[in-house]
Amino acid sequence: MNDIITLACGSGGKLTHQLITDVFYKHFSNDTLLEGGDSAVFAVNNGRMAFTTDSYVISPLFFKGGNIGRLAVCGTVNDLAVSGACPRYISCGFIIEEGFSIRELEAIVEAMASAADEAGVSIVTGDTKVVQKGCADKIFINTSGIGFIPENVMLSPKNIREGDKVILSGTMGDHGTAILLERENLKVQSPIASDCAPLYSLLGPVIREFPGAVRVMRDPTRGGVATALNELISGSSFSIKLDENTLPVKDAVKGICELLGMDPLYLANEGKVIIIADGTQADGVAAALREHKYGKDASIIGTVTGSSPGKVFLSTLAGGNRRIGMLSGDQLPRIC
Amino acid sequence: MNDIITLACGSGGKLTHQLITDVFYKHFSNDTLLEGGDSAVFAVNNGRMAFTTDSYVISPLFFKGGNIGRLAVCGTVNDLAVSGACPRYISCGFIIEEGFSIRELEAIVEAMASAADEAGVSIVTGDTKVVQKGCADKIFINTSGIGFIPENVMLSPKNIREGDKVILSGTMGDHGTAILLERENLKVQSPIASDCAPLYSLLGPVIREFPGAVRVMRDPTRGGVATALNELISGSSFSIKLDENTLPVKDAVKGICELLGMDPLYLANEGKVIIIADGTQADGVAAALREHKYGKDASIIGTVTGSSPGKVFLSTLAGGNRRIGMLSGDQLPRIC
Repeated sequence: MNDIITLACGSGGKLTHQLITDVFYKHFSNDTLLEGGDSAVFAVNNGRMAFTTDSYVISPLFFKGGNIGRLAVCGTVNDLAVSGACPRYISCGFIIEEGFSIRELEAIVEAMASAADEAGVSIVTGDTKVVQKGCADKIFINTSGIGFIPENVMLSPKNIREGDKVILSGTMGDHGTAILLERENLKVQSPIASDCAPLYSLLGPVIREFPGAVRVMRDPTRGGVATALNELISGSSFSIKLDENTLPVKDAVKGICELLGMDPLYLANEGKVIIIADGTQADGVAAALREHKYGKDASIIGTVTGSSPGKVFLSTLAGGNRRIGMLSGDQLPRIC
Repeated sequence: MNDIITLACGSGGKLTHQLITDVFYKHFSNDTLLEGGDSAVFAVNNGRMAFTTDSYVISPLFFKGGNIGRLAVCGTVNDLAVSGACPRYISCGFIIEEGFSIRELEAIVEAMASAADEAGVSIVTGDTKVVQKGCADKIFINTSGIGFIPENVMLSPKNIREGDKVILSGTMGDHGTAILLERENLKVQSPIASDCAPLYSLLGPVIREFPGAVRVMRDPTRGGVATALNELISGSSFSIKLDENTLPVKDAVKGICELLGMDPLYLANEGKVIIIADGTQADGVAAALREHKYGKDASIIGTVTGSSPGKVFLSTLAGGNRRIGMLSGDQLPRIC
């Protein structure tokens, strides 16, 4: 096998089959995938299914705390998990630039396999396209995912009630800051790593332990916590009031943000979840999250109130009350 | 709204939401999609499901007979249909180059909506990423699809038996030739259009009418009929013998291929299917295909024989017997 990806690797012919066997099957091996049909085929039971898709175009491909492969699996698994679903099957579509290193591809594929293992999902179907040099930036990955939602789980922004609490499972902006620091023009030494992680093992038990108390969940990726909260509350009869005092941000992240004029509320996270929960059970939910390694910094960051429907506000440390809108413009392109 | 895609359209913030509302929801409107959650959620019943993914990187984006949008829906729907599944749900992931025209995006999205309508599938979940100018070639689309397989349908290359017939649903190489002619350096006037079409309405009735007789199906896309047949027969105890006399190729395609030294057996198709069927019922299957607009040129092109296991041969017009391998190298990059 060559050291680099050639156009013929995407032709559908011999070299495509060799790439599939030597790289993809080597790491993604499972019976459904190895059937090698045009589709993966598996049994399903009566119930509700969640289906989601995301493409990953992050730059750089490798960063502290992960790489595009781990991100591509975690991101899609988390979209299923916050829908209340147990993630089960993943597809992956690679778009690769001619000349890309097969060694780097294999490192990415290994990370996908390992993240899939951790998340308990099988990568069952895939596709590879190769484009000419200059027609893509190294590698883009699409993952689509399928999960199954337990019968009694009905998460929706429509469930939100006055008095509910907003819980965040950990510190804000780790992923966004880590990527920012990796970019060529910012070679700063820093301890900050991406929080990229698969969250079903954190969320599944909480949903089971607190049936009904969990109203809705969302993973605050692109656009950060501020944008995700705006999405959840827009169109509702309630507003969200955040308490700046309680917003969990690592000191190192805070320092970088102050230096660069970024706001952690808008920075991407890849291993965090926002849970809106019944106010009377929110402490219990937060405590349950804190028992898990991916939720150890969980805290209640805000309250659902009845005034100013559809909006998000922040009680600032200085005693003010500031409206927090959705991200406008782009803080940081290609963050995921 | 701007006339072009900016990086902020992929930020996950305000402009992403505006793009989703103004372009995607406008054309893809359905209740599941409009829920706007992290995943699409829908009910499923006991049974077998097919799940497939494909990325589309075709160049040019618009061609005689279709565009990347129609192709992205048809290709994925067809992967489900040849697995014996009734296609039902589609996801779409867009990777767009900064500066791409929103008018062109909308034309692509309209074509996707119209192909989805024709195919009877709903586009229920999606994702948009924008990369800097020069980091992608205009637009790439991933579609993943879900379909459901009727209880008595069990298609597999393992079903193939000696004496089975190979049926092709129409002429070879229309898509590959149409794209070839669209490429900048080949501005030839020609009647050849891509055959790009959703095939479930052709295949569903045949599977129902001939239970058991249809052994396996495959859509001969990248790598053409030759590569698809090699995939189907490799690892089996049988071989396939094609009869050059019976290979359906349009005169115009034949002419272009002779001119350019291409072999229609290796050219991509996007609206054709290979069916391997019980020899005693193959005439009936072919006749049933011919009743449908997408199968009117269907014919039996070969036979499954017992000698030389795993290989494909062609009885040539000149009376020879030539081994037909899998595509090696790349006849034509970015054909889909």
